[in-house]
Amino acid sequence: MSKPIKIEKLAPKKPHGLIVVITGNGKGKTTSAMGMALRASGHGLHVCIIQFMKGDLYTGEWDGVKMLGDLVELHATGMGFCGIQGNSYSHAEHRTSAQTAIELAQTKMSSGNYEIIILDEINNALKLKLVDLEQVLGLIKGKPKLMHLVITGRNAHPDIVELADTVSEVCEVKHAYQKDIEPQPGIDY
Amino acid sequence: MSKPIKIEKLAPKKPHGLIVVITGNGKGKTTSAMGMALRASGHGLHVCIIQFMKGDLYTGEWDGVKMLGDLVELHATGMGFCGIQGNSYSHAEHRTSAQTAIELAQTKMSSGNYEIIILDEINNALKLKLVDLEQVLGLIKGKPKLMHLVITGRNAHPDIVELADTVSEVCEVKHAYQKDIEPQPGIDY
Repeated sequence: MSKPIKIEKLAPKKPHGLIVVITGNGKGKTTSAMGMALRASGHGLHVCIIQFMKGDLYTGEWDGVKMLGDLVELHATGMGFCGIQGNSYSHAEHRTSAQTAIELAQTKMSSGNYEIIILDEINNALKLKLVDLEQVLGLIKGKPKLMHLVITGRNAHPDIVELADTVSEVCEVKHAYQKDIEPQPGIDY
Repeated sequence: MSKPIKIEKLAPKKPHGLIVVITGNGKGKTTSAMGMALRASGHGLHVCIIQFMKGDLYTGEWDGVKMLGDLVELHATGMGFCGIQGNSYSHAEHRTSAQTAIELAQTKMSSGNYEIIILDEINNALKLKLVDLEQVLGLIKGKPKLMHLVITGRNAHPDIVELADTVSEVCEVKHAYQKDIEPQPGIDY
């Protein structure tokens, strides 16, 4: 195509470290967080992704982010979804795992090495009492001013929504599983 | 962390080429599509992203996807959002541009080279009459059986929703612009 489009590049006059919450019951929360990691890497920004609960089921983003080199790191710290059928770990084991993830988040946050930190599924971890509300609020309130913090998972706590700048609720209109279609690589995991 | 988590890797018994629609007025539609591209690249799948309307405003994913090598290609074919303040192109010019994008989508789809094709903002292009409903339905109905087709943008047409397997509506609970916070690189673009 030979159209002479002038490409504009935005640059905020006032950089602002955002608190972004992606919640709801539909597909596209973690996926959206991964999209932010990809987008950020295009800007040369450094991203640390900490996945709560996830860690027992392979998902493509684990290898996908490796292609983004030193810009994006991902820690899948979990033992699967606590309480679902087939998960053999106790609540205490899940909590120990999630508490280690909270410590990791604190360490990464205070390192100052990242422009964006993503706490994937932390809303779920909170709902399941694997982490405490005070811990999550502490992370939010203690974040470096210009660092962006992205929080995902169903059932975002109202106090977290209250503190956030941008909140999206991803609602399931329909999903392939309702037609007994299995999860497909690249799309669902 | 020294927990011996056994990692399971799913593999669908029945591969299924999904039609996924991400619509709604909230942040996280294109972002989610980019996340699928990243996730897919981890599986070694080939993705073609065609952005309708977008093309006049730099966004980090343009460079982000380059890091995914030959697996993901992105075509920003547009001239900006048709009809918004500051956009100087006529409806006819936008339509010509979108029609070229439709042809590109048809060519890419019939090449058989991609496991996933993403038509970003095509819902908007349809709403603005830059493409026709029959054209979009034709792409959906004519897609290779095992190829996934991801469609994004506000105001998804009911006929498209009807054909889709998975549909998420991303609802804006709140957004930073409401507090006069400018778009921030890595998060918003």
